[in-house]
Amino acid sequence: MKFVSILMGSKSDYSVMEECAKTLEKFGVLHEVVVSSAHRSPERTHQYVKNAEAKGAKVFIAAAGMAAHLAGVVASLTTKPVIGVPMKGGVMEGMDALLSTAQMPGGMPVGTVAIGSAGAVNSAYLAMQILAIEDEELAAKLKEDRILKAKKVETDSMGIEIIL
Amino acid sequence: MKFVSILMGSKSDYSVMEECAKTLEKFGVLHEVVVSSAHRSPERTHQYVKNAEAKGAKVFIAAAGMAAHLAGVVASLTTKPVIGVPMKGGVMEGMDALLSTAQMPGGMPVGTVAIGSAGAVNSAYLAMQILAIEDEELAAKLKEDRILKAKKVETDSMGIEIIL
Amino acid sequence: MKFVSILMGSKSDYSVMEECAKTLEKFGVLHEVVVSSAHRSPERTHQYVKNAEAKGAKVFIAAAGMAAHLAGVVASLTTKPVIGVPMKGGVMEGMDALLSTAQMPGGMPVGTVAIGSAGAVNSAYLAMQILAIEDEELAAKLKEDRILKAKKVETDSMGIEIIL
Amino acid sequence: MKFVSILMGSKSDYSVMEECAKTLEKFGVLHEVVVSSAHRSPERTHQYVKNAEAKGAKVFIAAAGMAAHLAGVVASLTTKPVIGVPMKGGVMEGMDALLSTAQMPGGMPVGTVAIGSAGAVNSAYLAMQILAIEDEELAAKLKEDRILKAKKVETDSMGIEIIL
Amino acid sequence: MKFVSILMGSKSDYSVMEECAKTLEKFGVLHEVVVSSAHRSPERTHQYVKNAEAKGAKVFIAAAGMAAHLAGVVASLTTKPVIGVPMKGGVMEGMDALLSTAQMPGGMPVGTVAIGSAGAVNSAYLAMQILAIEDEELAAKLKEDRILKAKKVETDSMGIEIIL
Amino acid sequence: MKFVSILMGSKSDYSVMEECAKTLEKFGVLHEVVVSSAHRSPERTHQYVKNAEAKGAKVFIAAAGMAAHLAGVVASLTTKPVIGVPMKGGVMEGMDALLSTAQMPGGMPVGTVAIGSAGAVNSAYLAMQILAIEDEELAAKLKEDRILKAKKVETDSMGIEIIL
Amino acid sequence: MKFVSILMGSKSDYSVMEECAKTLEKFGVLHEVVVSSAHRSPERTHQYVKNAEAKGAKVFIAAAGMAAHLAGVVASLTTKPVIGVPMKGGVMEGMDALLSTAQMPGGMPVGTVAIGSAGAVNSAYLAMQILAIEDEELAAKLKEDRILKAKKVETDSMGIEIIL
Amino acid sequence: MKFVSILMGSKSDYSVMEECAKTLEKFGVLHEVVVSSAHRSPERTHQYVKNAEAKGAKVFIAAAGMAAHLAGVVASLTTKPVIGVPMKGGVMEGMDALLSTAQMPGGMPVGTVAIGSAGAVNSAYLAMQILAIEDEELAAKLKEDRILKAKKVETDSMGIEIIL
Repeated sequence: MKFVSILMGSKSDYSVMEECAKTLEKFGVLHEVVVSSAHRSPERTHQYVKNAEAKGAKVFIAAAGMAAHLAGVVASLTTKPVIGVPMKGGVMEGMDALLSTAQMPGGMPVGTVAIGSAGAVNSAYLAMQILAIEDEELAAKLKEDRILKAKKVETDSMGIEIIL
Repeated sequence: MKFVSILMGSKSDYSVMEECAKTLEKFGVLHEVVVSSAHRSPERTHQYVKNAEAKGAKVFIAAAGMAAHLAGVVASLTTKPVIGVPMKGGVMEGMDALLSTAQMPGGMPVGTVAIGSAGAVNSAYLAMQILAIEDEELAAKLKEDRILKAKKVETDSMGIEIIL
Repeated sequence: MKFVSILMGSKSDYSVMEECAKTLEKFGVLHEVVVSSAHRSPERTHQYVKNAEAKGAKVFIAAAGMAAHLAGVVASLTTKPVIGVPMKGGVMEGMDALLSTAQMPGGMPVGTVAIGSAGAVNSAYLAMQILAIEDEELAAKLKEDRILKAKKVETDSMGIEIIL
Repeated sequence: MKFVSILMGSKSDYSVMEECAKTLEKFGVLHEVVVSSAHRSPERTHQYVKNAEAKGAKVFIAAAGMAAHLAGVVASLTTKPVIGVPMKGGVMEGMDALLSTAQMPGGMPVGTVAIGSAGAVNSAYLAMQILAIEDEELAAKLKEDRILKAKKVETDSMGIEIIL
Repeated sequence: MKFVSILMGSKSDYSVMEECAKTLEKFGVLHEVVVSSAHRSPERTHQYVKNAEAKGAKVFIAAAGMAAHLAGVVASLTTKPVIGVPMKGGVMEGMDALLSTAQMPGGMPVGTVAIGSAGAVNSAYLAMQILAIEDEELAAKLKEDRILKAKKVETDSMGIEIIL
Repeated sequence: MKFVSILMGSKSDYSVMEECAKTLEKFGVLHEVVVSSAHRSPERTHQYVKNAEAKGAKVFIAAAGMAAHLAGVVASLTTKPVIGVPMKGGVMEGMDALLSTAQMPGGMPVGTVAIGSAGAVNSAYLAMQILAIEDEELAAKLKEDRILKAKKVETDSMGIEIIL
Repeated sequence: MKFVSILMGSKSDYSVMEECAKTLEKFGVLHEVVVSSAHRSPERTHQYVKNAEAKGAKVFIAAAGMAAHLAGVVASLTTKPVIGVPMKGGVMEGMDALLSTAQMPGGMPVGTVAIGSAGAVNSAYLAMQILAIEDEELAAKLKEDRILKAKKVETDSMGIEIIL
Repeated sequence: MKFVSILMGSKSDYSVMEECAKTLEKFGVLHEVVVSSAHRSPERTHQYVKNAEAKGAKVFIAAAGMAAHLAGVVASLTTKPVIGVPMKGGVMEGMDALLSTAQMPGGMPVGTVAIGSAGAVNSAYLAMQILAIEDEELAAKLKEDRILKAKKVETDSMGIEIIL
C-alpha cells in the first residue's frame, strides 16, 4: 500500500484542508487524514508518523497555523518528503506560519506551498507529482489536467475579452 | 535540588546565551546548559526535558532561531514555566523566531522575551523573578539590582547632561 | 493571601481578557482585575502595583494594545514576574503591541504571550505554571488538563479522520 | 526662563541625539539634556519632568529605542508638547520604536519624527518652530535657514548636473 | 487672529478628521478646514498655505493616506509647526502613510501622530498643547481634561474590577 | 493600428481591471483585453504577446496577484513598455504582488503602479501619457482632465470647508 | 529636441542614478540631470519641471528615498510619463520609498521600478522603450540588447554548468 | 538516466547553490547545473526544461531572487516536482523572493524551502527524499545521515554543557 498522509494541527484546519483530500480523491490517490497537534498531543503525533511510514505513507502533508510547528515535527520524525501548508490565523495572516514552516535547519527540509486554500490544493498536486515519478498512469492524468487548465484560461477569457 | 534548565537549538546560539548563564551565576542560581535540537535530535530533547524536570528543573529557558520550534517542543513536554528566547538569523532578523515562539495554542504558553542578547539576559531575570516568589534571599538581591540599575542611569547621565 | 493581578489598559480589553480571569477561576486561583492606563492614569497604575504587591500579588498580567506600554510600566515598578498580553488594534494587528511588550531593556523582563485571545488564555496558564512550582495541588490540575487536551485532539480527529 | 528639554532612555542614544542639542545651540535656543529611563529609573523620570516643567521647559523631546516607552511616559506626565524620536536598534530597525512612540491613546499625543539622526535634527527644528510662534527673532532665523537649504540644493546640483 | 489650519487630501478623509475639528471646537480653539490635494491640486495647496499663514494660522494639521505627501508639501511651504495624520487605506493599513509622513529630510519636520481616528484626535490635542504654551486659559483646560481622563479610567474599572 | 494591450492572469481580476478598460474607452483609446496566465497557459501568453506586438500594441498592461509573474513574463517577450498592476489577494494584501512585479532584473523593466483599483485606473493613465507623447489630441485631453480633477477638489472642499 | 529628464532629491542619490544616465548615454539618448528636492527646494522643482517640459522633455525620471515625494510632485506638475526610482535609506530599506512612490491617487500615475541600482538602470530602459515607440532606430537597439542579454546568460552558464 | 536538474537565474546565485550540488554529490545523486533566466533568456529556459525532462530529470530545483519567477516558470513547463530556493537580495532580504516562489496558483505547486544557503542544502535533501521513495539505497543513506546529525548535536553540546 502506497498513500499520502495528511495531518492537521487542529480540527478547524479541515475546512481548508478538505480541498487537499478532495483533490487526491479526484485523481484516485489513496490518503489518510488525521488531526494531531505538535503541542497538545506530541506522543500521538510521534506514534502516528512512525506507524504511517511503516504502513506505506510515501509523502506527508502537514497543515498548521500560528507557531506552525507540525510540519517541522513530522520532518524530524521521518525521511519521507514532507509538504507544509501554512494556515492563516496568526498575526501576519499566515506569513508567520509560512516562515515557521519553511525556515528549517539544514538536512530537515519541508517543501512549503502557498498559505491557506491555494496551498491546500497545491500540497495535493505536489504529492501527486512526487508519486507520479514512478506511476505513469498518474503522470498522464497530471499532464491532462494541465491541458484542461490552459483551456479553462481560454474559456475564461472569452467571457470578457476584447480583440481588435 | 532546584535549578533553571537552559536549552539551545544550536551550539552557535551559545555566544548569545552565555549571557543568560552568566546572569544566573552572578546571582548564585543553579542552572544546567545543554544543546538539543527540536528537529535534529527530537529524542534527545524529549528525554532531556523529562529527566531535567524529574531532577528538579523549576523553569526552562529555550533559545532557538529560524523556524524556532524548540521552546514550543519543550512546552509540550512539561507543565513547568517555559521562557523562549528568539535568536536572530532568519529572514526577519528574529521577528520570525519571535512569532514562532510566542504564538502558542491555548494551554501551552511560552513566556517570550526580546530577541537576541537583550532576551538572553532577560530570560535569566524572568526565571529568577519566578524562583524569587518563594526565595526571599533571591528576591532581596533582585530588588537591590533594581536600585543599582537606577543609579547607573544617573551616573550615565552625568557624563553628558546639560542642566540649566 | 497569594493572587494573580490582572491589569488592562482600557475597559474594551476586557472582552478579550475575560478569558484570562475565567481560566484562573476554573482552576480556583485567586485573582484581581483592574483597568489602569499607563498613559491616562499613571499615578493610579503606580499605586495599584505597589499596593497589590504588598497585599500578596505573586504574578502580574498586563494587557494593552497600540503603543502597548502597560506591561513595561508594571515591570518597572515590581520585581515580581510580569506577563504581557499584546492586544490587537494597532496598525500591525497587534505585532506592534507584541514588539512594544517584548523588547524590554536588560533586567526588566516581560514574559510575552500570543496576541489577543490565545494570549489571554495563555497568560493565565503561565501564571498558574509559575504558582504551581510550589503548589502541588495546582501542579496536579495542570497535568490533568494536559491529558484532557491530548484526548480532545483524538476526539476532534475522529469526526473527520480517514484511516486506511 | 524658556527652554527645550531633551531626554534619552540610554547614554548610547547620545551619539545620535547630540545632533539635536547642536541644532538648538546653533540657533541659540536654551536646552537641557538628561538620560533617564522609563523602565530602569521611573522615579527619576517622573521627578525630572515635573521639575523641568516648573523651571520653564516649554517643549519636551524624548528619544528611545526598542520598546520605546520614554516619550509616552513623558507625555503622560505633562501637557506641554512632547516630540518623540524613535531610535534604531530593535528588530524592525526602528519601525518598532516608531510605532511604539506614535500610536498613543486619544488625548496624550506624541509628535513623532523620523527614526535616528534625521529625526534627531528634526526634533530640534520642530521644537524651534513651536517656540517661534511667539518669538519673531527665532522665526526669522528659521525662514533664513530655509533659503539657505534651497540654495544648498542648487549648489549640490551644480556639481553633477547636465543641462541641454 | 490665531487659528489652527486643517487640510485633508480627500473629501473622504473628513469622516475621520471631523474628530479633529470637533476636539478643537470643544476647547473653543479657532480653526479652518479645507480639502486640498498635494497631487490633484498643487497650486491650490500652495496658495492656501501661503494665505493661511498670512491670515494667522499658527499650526497646520495635514491628513492624507496612500503615498501621503500632503503634510510634507505643507511643511515645505511654511516654517510653522506641521502635524501629520496618516490615514488608513494603503496596502499596509496606514503604516505606508505613517512612514511617508514621518520620514522627512533634515530641517523640514512633520510631527506625526497615530494612524486614523486616534491620530485625528491627537493632532488636535498636540496643536492645542502648542498654542497653550502662551495661552494660560487653554493650558488650564488641558490640565483639567487630563484629570477627567484619569477619573474616567477609574469609572471604567469599576464596571468590571475584582478586588480581593 | 495603435492600441493598448491589457492582460490579466485570472478572470477574477476583471472586476478590478474593468476600470482600466473603461478609462481608456472614456478617452477614446483603442485597447484589447485578454485573460492569459503566466503559469496555467504559458504558450498562450507567449503567442498573444508576439501577435499583439505585430498587430500594433504599443503599450502592455499586465495585472496579476500572488506570485505575480505575468507582467515579468510579458516584459521578457517584448521591448514595448510594460505596465504592471499588482492585485490584492496574497498574504501581504498585494505588497507581495507589488514587489514581485517591480523588482525586475536590469534591462527588463516593468513600470509598476499602485495595488488594486487605484493602479488599474493609473495603468490606463500612464499608457495614455506614453501614447500622448506623439498624439497632441490625446495630450490635450489629459491636460483638460487635470484641470477637472483640480476643480473637483475645490467642489469637494466646499461641502465641508470652514474658512475663518 | 526630445530628451529624458532625470531629477534626484539629493546629491547623494547620484552614486546610484549615475547608472541611469550612463545607460541612456550608451544608447545615445539625450538627457538632463538635476538635483532638486520636493521639500527643500519646492519652487526650483516646480520651475524646472515646467521649463523642461517646454524645452522638450518627453519622459521624467525621479529618484528619491525616505518620504519619497519627488516623483509624485513631478507627476502633479506634468502630464508626461513619470518614472519613479525608490532609493534605499529609509527604515524599510527602500520599501517605504517604493510605496510612497507607487501608491499615487487615480489620474496621477508614477511608473515605479525596482529599488536602488536595479531600478536606476531599469528607469533608463523604460524611458527608452517609451521613446522607441516612435523611434525605430532606438527600437532596433533595444531588441539587439535583448539578444546580447540572452547570450550573456549562456556565457555565464558555461563557467559553472554541469550537463550529463 | 535519472537526475536532479538545478537551475539558477543568475551566475551569482552559484556561490549559494554550490551547496546544493555538493550535497547531491556527497550522496552520489546525479545532477545537472545550469544558469538560465526567466526574464533574460525565456527561450533557453523553456527549451532546457523540455529537454531535461525528456533526458530523465525527475526533480527540478530552481533558485532565484528579487522578482523570483524562475521556479514558477519551470513549474509551468513540467509536471515533475519543482523545488524553489528563494535567494536573498531583494528589498525584504529574500522574503519577497520566498512569497514570489511559494504563492503559486492552484495546480502549479512549487515546494519552497528556506531562503539562501539553508534552502540550498535543503533543496538537495528534499530532492533526495523524493527519489528515495523508490531507491532503498538512497533511503538508507538518508536515515544514516539523520543519526549522524543527532550525534553531532550531542558532540556540540559536550563542548559547552553544564549538567548538575
